[in-house]
Amino acid sequence: MKTLGVELGERSYPIYIGNGLLGSPELVKPHIRGQQVLIVSNETVAPLYLDKVMPAFADYQVETVILPDGEKYKNLDVLNRIYDQLLEKRFDRKCTLVALGGGVIGDMTGFAAACYQRGVDFIQIPTTLLSQVDSSVGGKTGVNHPLGKNMIGAFHQPRCVIADTDTLDTLDERQLSAGLAEVIKYGLIHDAEFFQWQEANMGQLMAREAEAMAYAIERSCLDKAKVVAADEREGGIRAILNLGHTFGHAIETAVGYGEWLHGEAVGTGMLMAADLSQRMGWLGEADVERVDAILDKAGLPTRYPASLSNARFLELMSVDKKVEAGRIRLVLLKAVGEAVISDAFDPALMQATLDAHRSIED
Amino acid sequence: MKTLGVELGERSYPIYIGNGLLGSPELVKPHIRGQQVLIVSNETVAPLYLDKVMPAFADYQVETVILPDGEKYKNLDVLNRIYDQLLEKRFDRKCTLVALGGGVIGDMTGFAAACYQRGVDFIQIPTTLLSQVDSSVGGKTGVNHPLGKNMIGAFHQPRCVIADTDTLDTLDERQLSAGLAEVIKYGLIHDAEFFQWQEANMGQLMAREAEAMAYAIERSCLDKAKVVAADEREGGIRAILNLGHTFGHAIETAVGYGEWLHGEAVGTGMLMAADLSQRMGWLGEADVERVDAILDKAGLPTRYPASLSNARFLELMSVDKKVEAGRIRLVLLKAVGEAVISDAFDPALMQATLDAHRSIED
Repeated sequence: MKTLGVELGERSYPIYIGNGLLGSPELVKPHIRGQQVLIVSNETVAPLYLDKVMPAFADYQVETVILPDGEKYKNLDVLNRIYDQLLEKRFDRKCTLVALGGGVIGDMTGFAAACYQRGVDFIQIPTTLLSQVDSSVGGKTGVNHPLGKNMIGAFHQPRCVIADTDTLDTLDERQLSAGLAEVIKYGLIHDAEFFQWQEANMGQLMAREAEAMAYAIERSCLDKAKVVAADEREGGIRAILNLGHTFGHAIETAVGYGEWLHGEAVGTGMLMAADLSQRMGWLGEADVERVDAILDKAGLPTRYPASLSNARFLELMSVDKKVEAGRIRLVLLKAVGEAVISDAFDPALMQATLDAHRSIED
Repeated sequence: MKTLGVELGERSYPIYIGNGLLGSPELVKPHIRGQQVLIVSNETVAPLYLDKVMPAFADYQVETVILPDGEKYKNLDVLNRIYDQLLEKRFDRKCTLVALGGGVIGDMTGFAAACYQRGVDFIQIPTTLLSQVDSSVGGKTGVNHPLGKNMIGAFHQPRCVIADTDTLDTLDERQLSAGLAEVIKYGLIHDAEFFQWQEANMGQLMAREAEAMAYAIERSCLDKAKVVAADEREGGIRAILNLGHTFGHAIETAVGYGEWLHGEAVGTGMLMAADLSQRMGWLGEADVERVDAILDKAGLPTRYPASLSNARFLELMSVDKKVEAGRIRLVLLKAVGEAVISDAFDPALMQATLDAHRSIED
């Protein structure tokens, strides 16, 4: 087992990475203050892992909420089911919520914890590659609104994160690829060496080779932790973590939440960001090809649905959280391993990027 | 105009108290960072004051949301109407929400601001005595759940508060009395001198005499600001601000939100806390009579509805946010001007207090 520290002053917390960690009381006990624990999971993950985590919480009053599975359930209505359970069971301010599942469960449980009685503790047990390398670090929590993704939320740090690589064995191929999209992102935004390692090792990652996977998770979390420690509440530099996300959110919103996985949309979005960066003269064509090639190796899509027009794509991008005073701000690339934030792009070049990445068919 | 500072480090903010303040751009401008302003009000307050505040925001894009009036609308569903408007109008992270109304509008608008895009600015313009002396200071925001009041929320400080005493002229008698309950509370918990002043000046306050009212608001805000500055997130001492609230919340929940005003329930609750303190030998009978007398002068109820049994009353108190490990923690009085927090009360004495304050009829 590896232990990484996310350094955020009094909100610092450890991430435990390894296998066979799910049922260990010694990992969670130091991070629980009261006697009451609510485990939040979904209909897919609970049958696989709920029994395995229960021994870790044997000394506490444990209740569970099992939510439906999918991004389309990440809304205020479904969130309220967590509050129903907390209040029916009389959970007090010293209770702990445990998120057992992927990014949707992590985001919703974290947000429920942020707002229950104005803030209680929570522990993350991410069970997908995406959530292990992304939502484990940074404390972003929230739900979607029909008009925008993650528009309602809070910054709320977990007390600890347990990333058990055993849980990745049950991931389907699409989920695995979606997680790899975020791993690729860390290389692209500020870790060229890690990107090179990925180019050499993508086969092992796709084969879920344990050692390669643990290394990729650890390095991704380290990369993200560095950025978050520098800018916890996203006043500046932290926004580079959104490489591919403004394009990606537009795709997700257009096709309806859940049709495309978040990581799939981010994959296509990163290639579009690289393409626009190249058209602006920042990135060489060879680097754009490297991005295209690694997405392909990772089984990720590189074209968005044909039914989405340029006008609609731009409209959807303009509701992004990074928009300021009506201007779309994008994360772009100066090089592989060097991201920049800019709102100074030529609209004609943007049109060309949109044209170039539309599928022939839906 | 008086200006009070609430000192909370980088979250410090001013409270402006006086008359004729509503339409002043110079008060709000230094506290607005972006170009977009959303004014949230209700069907009662908007027709009276919306036109009066508009000139203050003449330089911005101003949108409005008018919510139905009343505590029963303080829930996640109605909260979502604020998000609908923010997203339909494409409000960005630098937008400012303005709460124009009483405590319900302030709590909901503050909570909407706390969670929109994980936190945007807000300005409070409280238009009731209760909200001017209570919700102006402290940053508590949130909504109710059918099983408990204020159970979903966040700490989020406003950028400034504008307490215009002109708005009190349109308050009905019950609302005025409800506000005075919180004024009385500050005297009882840690300002014996202010309590004495109130005993001498309650007639002027009930007559809405401007000078007396401005003094009561200022001193109440000062008293609360001292407590909040010492304990922003209610780890300890801040809980004394809840004198009468555990009893009061039980009454409000039992009768249904909105039947009793919050301040009315707190009034009866404070007398019950004083009564229990007397039975425990902490407070003299004469002091309990002073509490009873001042509530009476302020037009506040001192008995709860006959239909509420002792067992149900205790059950409702046990879902209070101050409950820890199943024990009810109460704010009690060692003297007029000295509150303490205790879970060490004799259940038989509690029964006697409940018996003594039940109405003969509903």
